[in-house]
Amino acid sequence: MTDTRTLTRFSVEPLSRMTRHLAAVASGRAEPDRVLTGARLLSTYSERILPDREVWIAGGRIAAVKPAGTYRGGAPRQDLAGGLLAPGLVDPHLHIESSMVTACAYAEAALLNGTTTIVCDSHEIGNVLDSDGIAWMLEDARAAPLNIYLTVPSTVPATSPELETAGGDLDAVKIAALFDAWPEAIGLGEKMDFVAVCEGDPRAHAIIRAALERGRPVSGHIYGRDFVAPYAASGVTDTHEAIDRDIADDLLEAGVWIYLRGGPPTTPWHSLPKAIGTMVEYGAAAKRICVCTDDRDAQDLLAFGLDWVVREAVRMGVPKVQAWSMGSLHPATRYGLDGEVGGFGGGRRADLVLLDDDLVPQSTWYGGALVVENRRITPILEAALSRPYRYPAPAYATMHLPDPLPALIPDLPAGPCRINAIRTTLPGIELTHEVVDLVPGPDWSATLAENDLCFVTVIERHGRAGNLAHGLLRAFGLKRGAVASSVGHDSHNVIVAGLNEADMRVALDTLSGIQGGVCVVEDGRVVALVPLPVAGLLSDKRVTAVAEEVRVLKEAWDRAGCTIPYMGFNLIPLSVIPEIRITDKGLVLVPGMRIVPLFEAA
Amino acid sequence: MTDTRTLTRFSVEPLSRMTRHLAAVASGRAEPDRVLTGARLLSTYSERILPDREVWIAGGRIAAVKPAGTYRGGAPRQDLAGGLLAPGLVDPHLHIESSMVTACAYAEAALLNGTTTIVCDSHEIGNVLDSDGIAWMLEDARAAPLNIYLTVPSTVPATSPELETAGGDLDAVKIAALFDAWPEAIGLGEKMDFVAVCEGDPRAHAIIRAALERGRPVSGHIYGRDFVAPYAASGVTDTHEAIDRDIADDLLEAGVWIYLRGGPPTTPWHSLPKAIGTMVEYGAAAKRICVCTDDRDAQDLLAFGLDWVVREAVRMGVPKVQAWSMGSLHPATRYGLDGEVGGFGGGRRADLVLLDDDLVPQSTWYGGALVVENRRITPILEAALSRPYRYPAPAYATMHLPDPLPALIPDLPAGPCRINAIRTTLPGIELTHEVVDLVPGPDWSATLAENDLCFVTVIERHGRAGNLAHGLLRAFGLKRGAVASSVGHDSHNVIVAGLNEADMRVALDTLSGIQGGVCVVEDGRVVALVPLPVAGLLSDKRVTAVAEEVRVLKEAWDRAGCTIPYMGFNLIPLSVIPEIRITDKGLVLVPGMRIVPLFEAA
Repeated sequence: MTDTRTLTRFSVEPLSRMTRHLAAVASGRAEPDRVLTGARLLSTYSERILPDREVWIAGGRIAAVKPAGTYRGGAPRQDLAGGLLAPGLVDPHLHIESSMVTACAYAEAALLNGTTTIVCDSHEIGNVLDSDGIAWMLEDARAAPLNIYLTVPSTVPATSPELETAGGDLDAVKIAALFDAWPEAIGLGEKMDFVAVCEGDPRAHAIIRAALERGRPVSGHIYGRDFVAPYAASGVTDTHEAIDRDIADDLLEAGVWIYLRGGPPTTPWHSLPKAIGTMVEYGAAAKRICVCTDDRDAQDLLAFGLDWVVREAVRMGVPKVQAWSMGSLHPATRYGLDGEVGGFGGGRRADLVLLDDDLVPQSTWYGGALVVENRRITPILEAALSRPYRYPAPAYATMHLPDPLPALIPDLPAGPCRINAIRTTLPGIELTHEVVDLVPGPDWSATLAENDLCFVTVIERHGRAGNLAHGLLRAFGLKRGAVASSVGHDSHNVIVAGLNEADMRVALDTLSGIQGGVCVVEDGRVVALVPLPVAGLLSDKRVTAVAEEVRVLKEAWDRAGCTIPYMGFNLIPLSVIPEIRITDKGLVLVPGMRIVPLFEAA
Repeated sequence: MTDTRTLTRFSVEPLSRMTRHLAAVASGRAEPDRVLTGARLLSTYSERILPDREVWIAGGRIAAVKPAGTYRGGAPRQDLAGGLLAPGLVDPHLHIESSMVTACAYAEAALLNGTTTIVCDSHEIGNVLDSDGIAWMLEDARAAPLNIYLTVPSTVPATSPELETAGGDLDAVKIAALFDAWPEAIGLGEKMDFVAVCEGDPRAHAIIRAALERGRPVSGHIYGRDFVAPYAASGVTDTHEAIDRDIADDLLEAGVWIYLRGGPPTTPWHSLPKAIGTMVEYGAAAKRICVCTDDRDAQDLLAFGLDWVVREAVRMGVPKVQAWSMGSLHPATRYGLDGEVGGFGGGRRADLVLLDDDLVPQSTWYGGALVVENRRITPILEAALSRPYRYPAPAYATMHLPDPLPALIPDLPAGPCRINAIRTTLPGIELTHEVVDLVPGPDWSATLAENDLCFVTVIERHGRAGNLAHGLLRAFGLKRGAVASSVGHDSHNVIVAGLNEADMRVALDTLSGIQGGVCVVEDGRVVALVPLPVAGLLSDKRVTAVAEEVRVLKEAWDRAGCTIPYMGFNLIPLSVIPEIRITDKGLVLVPGMRIVPLFEAA
C-alpha cells in the first residue's frame, strides 16, 4: 500500500523487487490493492481505444488489465463509468527553474495536468551553483510526488569567461561524476553551443563523449538547417528547437527525435504548429515524434501543461490516441523508460489519468494513489506537498553583489557621441543592435526621454568578479521607476532597468535583501515582487502561490509600460542570441561574440 | 579507413571517439572516406522513401546524408543509379546454434541477406558448456564481421535435474556475472519456463531481477492467453512466440514487444502470417512490432533470412518501408541501439543494403566496407571469413558418454504389456503420448515392424550421470538403420533412433569419435554426416559448406523414411513441450512433468 506520508517516486518499489507479487496478483493468487473498472483504455502501444477494461493495481504498479467485471474479490473497486483512462504524460524536456518553483512544488501543477513523469534539465541552477545546485535539485526531485529524471546540463556556462561570469562551470569531468552518482541522470541536457559543437570544439565534444561512453543519449538545441548534419553526426539525438516544418523534417531524417514544443500562443516558444508539418503535411511517421513544454512560468504551467500541448497537436490534425502517445509512450521509449511508464503494460507504474473526451485530465493516479480527483488535489497529495524538500543554507545565499555597489548608471556624456543601444522588440527573444547618435541633454532624465532610452545594468552576483556593466535599452517603454531580476539567463547575474538610479537601487536592494527575485519599483516603492530565495531562481512556496505572485507581477510589469514580458527581459543577458546582449562584462555582439563599448566617438 | 585484416564490429570506432571527425566531415572541413550517391533512401525514421540522396561515410559511420550531387571532393564516389538504399537489418532474436555454424560463419549468410546486426541467445551452448561456452561464443561473436549482441540465456537447464541432466546450470549469480563482464549482453534471453515464472518460482524471478536491476530488458517465450498478464507483470517485455492474431494482440496490449517470427513455410516456426493479424486485421500500430528469424538451419539460413521475413510481412499487407523498419529500426529501438544502427541518422554505423524494388538485397556495406556486391561476397569479406575465431580445446571435447556404453535397446518383454510410446507427428514439434498394447513377437525386429515402432535412446553426454534411457517411437517411419544427433534440445544429450542395436552403435560411435554431429546410418555404413565438433552443436566450417552437408543429410533423412525432419527429431528430448518426451532420465509426461516407465503391466 502506498505510504501517504512519503508519496514520492520511491513509494513504489522497483519492478525488479515486485515481479513475484505482481505475477501472483495477475494470476489471482494474491489480491490487488485496488481495481479501476469500467474504463475505456487509451492504448499507446497499439494506438487504439480499448473498450470495457479494468486495471488491477498492486504496490503502485499495474498487475493486469482485464475485461471489465473480471475482478470479483474484495479489494476497493472504482467504476469509471466508461471514462477514458490513459497513461500519465511524460514530458521529455523542460526546465523546472522556468516555473520559479521547486521540484516538489512543480509536481502539483504537473499532476493537475495529467503529467506524472518529467525529464528536466537543471541548467539554470547549475549556472548559479555548479554541481552542488544540480545535486540539491535532484534531492528536491527525489522528494517530489512525481517521477523526475534529469538530463545533465551540458553547457554551463553558456558562453565563456571572457564574455560573462557564471556561478557554475561544468566540464566533462564534473558531468561524468554527475552521471555516475545519479542513476536518474538519463541523458545529457541540451547542447546549446551548437555552433561550437559543429566546429569541433574540444570541450563540447569531451562533454558529449562523457555521455555517450556511459550509454546516455545527448539532447540538442539547434537553429539553422546547415547545422543539422554536423550536429547529428556529433551524436545529438533529440531536439525541441525544430521551429518549422522543414528543419523538423531534416532533423527527423538525421536520426534526431523531434520534441514538438508547445507554449502559450502569445509566446515564441509555441513552435509546434509549424514544426508539426513534418507529420501532417509531409506524412512522416509519428513514432519518433514527441511533445514537450520546455519553459513555463508558474502561471502558464497551470494553464498550458503538456496536456494542452497534446490537445494542440490534435487541433493540428493528429489523431487523439497518437497525440497522447507522443506525450507518453514516445518520450518514455526515447529514454528507455517504456518498461516503467508510458502505457498500460504489466509491471508499469500505475500512473494514470482519467480524461474527458477532449483529452482534458479530470483525475490522476500517481503510483496507484489518487492524487487529483475531479481536477482538485486530494488529501494524499496535499499531505505530500506540505512536506517539501528544503534546500540547504548555501542555496539561500547566492546574491553576492559587489560591496559597495558602484554607480548603477553611467556618467552623462560630455558631448555628442554614438551609443550601442539594445533595441527590444516583441516577442522578446531577439534584440536589435541599434547605433544611436546621441546629443546629451541637460541631464540623463531629459536625454533618456528625448531618445526613447532607459538604463540597463548587469551586476555580477556570484561573488567572483564584482563586475558591473552599463547599457541602454531602446524602446523598452518603461514609464517610470525600475524593474529588476536575479534571473538573467544563463549566468543569472542581476539585471536592472530603470529611469533613475534611486529606483534602480531600491530594486537591487530589495532583491539583495531577499536573496533574489523579480520586482517592479515605482517612485521608491516596490509595487510587485516575486521572491526567489533559492539560488535567486526559485520560490519556496506552492505553485499556486507563485502563480498568483506572477500574475500580479505581470500586471505591474504591463502598467510600468515594459514592451517585452519579464521572461524576455530575463533573456537580455543571454549572449548566444542575436544581435546584442549585455552581461556583467559589457555589451556583447552576437554572433561575432565580441564586446563593444556603450559610448563611441561620434 | 577500415582495416580489412580485422573486419569486425570493432573496425568502426565507438561514436563517442568519433564525433569531432564526423562533425568535420559533415561540415566540409574534412573529407569523407567514400560517398554513395544517386540513391533513393528507405527512411525508417519517417517511413518514406527519399529520392536523390547521397551518403557521406567516414570511419565506417554515416557523417551526413545530402542531396545527390552535393559532394564535389576527391573521395571515392559510387553512383547507385537510383537504387534503393536501406539500413541493414537487425534481427532481435535468434539462436546461432540452430544454424550449426559459429558466429564468424553465421556472418556470411547474414550479410548476404542484408542483416548486419543480430541479437542472439546462446542458450544451446550454455546448456552444454555453462558460462564458459557463452563466453567463448561471445569471443567468437567479437571476431565476426557482424554486429552481434547477446541476450543472456535465462533458462539453463530448461527444466530441472530431476527430469534431465544438462551440462550447464545458470543461476542468477552466474547470469549477473555475464551481464557485468560483457557489455554486449543487452538483455535477458527468452524466459522459457513461463509457467514457473507465472507461478512465482524464486529461481526464475531471481534471474529476472538480475536483469532488471541492471536495466536490461527481459525477453519472453510464452504460449497461452491466460499466461499473458502474469508473465508481463513479471517484467517480460518481448516475445517471438505470439503464434496467432489474438495472443499477439493480448501481448502487445500488455506492453510486450512483438517479434513476428518468419520461418520456412513448411515449418511450424512460420507464425508471422497469423500473428500479423494484430496489425493488418486489428489495426495495431507497427511501432512496437518487429520481425525475427529465431531458428534456421544452415541451408534455410541462406534462403530464408530476415530479408525474406520482411518480404513475407509485405506480402501480408504491410507497406514496404514499414516492414523494413520492423526489421531494422524497431528492433534497434527495442534494445536501445537506435543511436548505432537501424537508420540513416548522423553518426550511425554505415551498415547499408542496396535493395531491388522487391526488397531483395543486392549489395551490403558493413561499417562502410562493401562486403556483398551483386549478391556475392567481396574479397574484403572473404579475407575476414578466412580467419575465424577458433574455440578452445574444451569446446572440442564435450562427448563424455558412459564407458562402457550400456545396451542401447531394452530387453524384449517376456509377455504382453503396455508401452508408453512416443508418437511422432508433423510438423514435428508436439509429440503424442500413445499407450500401445504390445504382444511381443519372436524378436525385436518382428515386434517393431508389427507395431510401427522403432527404438529411441537418449544417452547423457556431459560426463555427469552416465544415464541412458530407452523409449519407443511410433510412426517415425524409419525403414532401416539408425539416425543420431548430439543436438538434443535443450540439454543436448545424444539421441539415437534405430531399428537395431548394431546400426545405433555405429551411429553413436561415429558421433563420439568426431565429438558430435548428426548422422544417418544404413546397414552399418554412415550415409550422411554433419560433423558438429564444437560443443557437439556447431561445425567449424563455412556456412556454405555446412549448408551443403545439411542438404545431403536431409536427403538421406528422407530416404531413410523419417516422418519428421531432423530438427524435429532434435526436439524429442525437449521436456517442456507436450505430450511426452524422452530425456536421459526416462520418459517425461508434459505438462505434468513426471517420469513414466516404458513398459507397464498389461
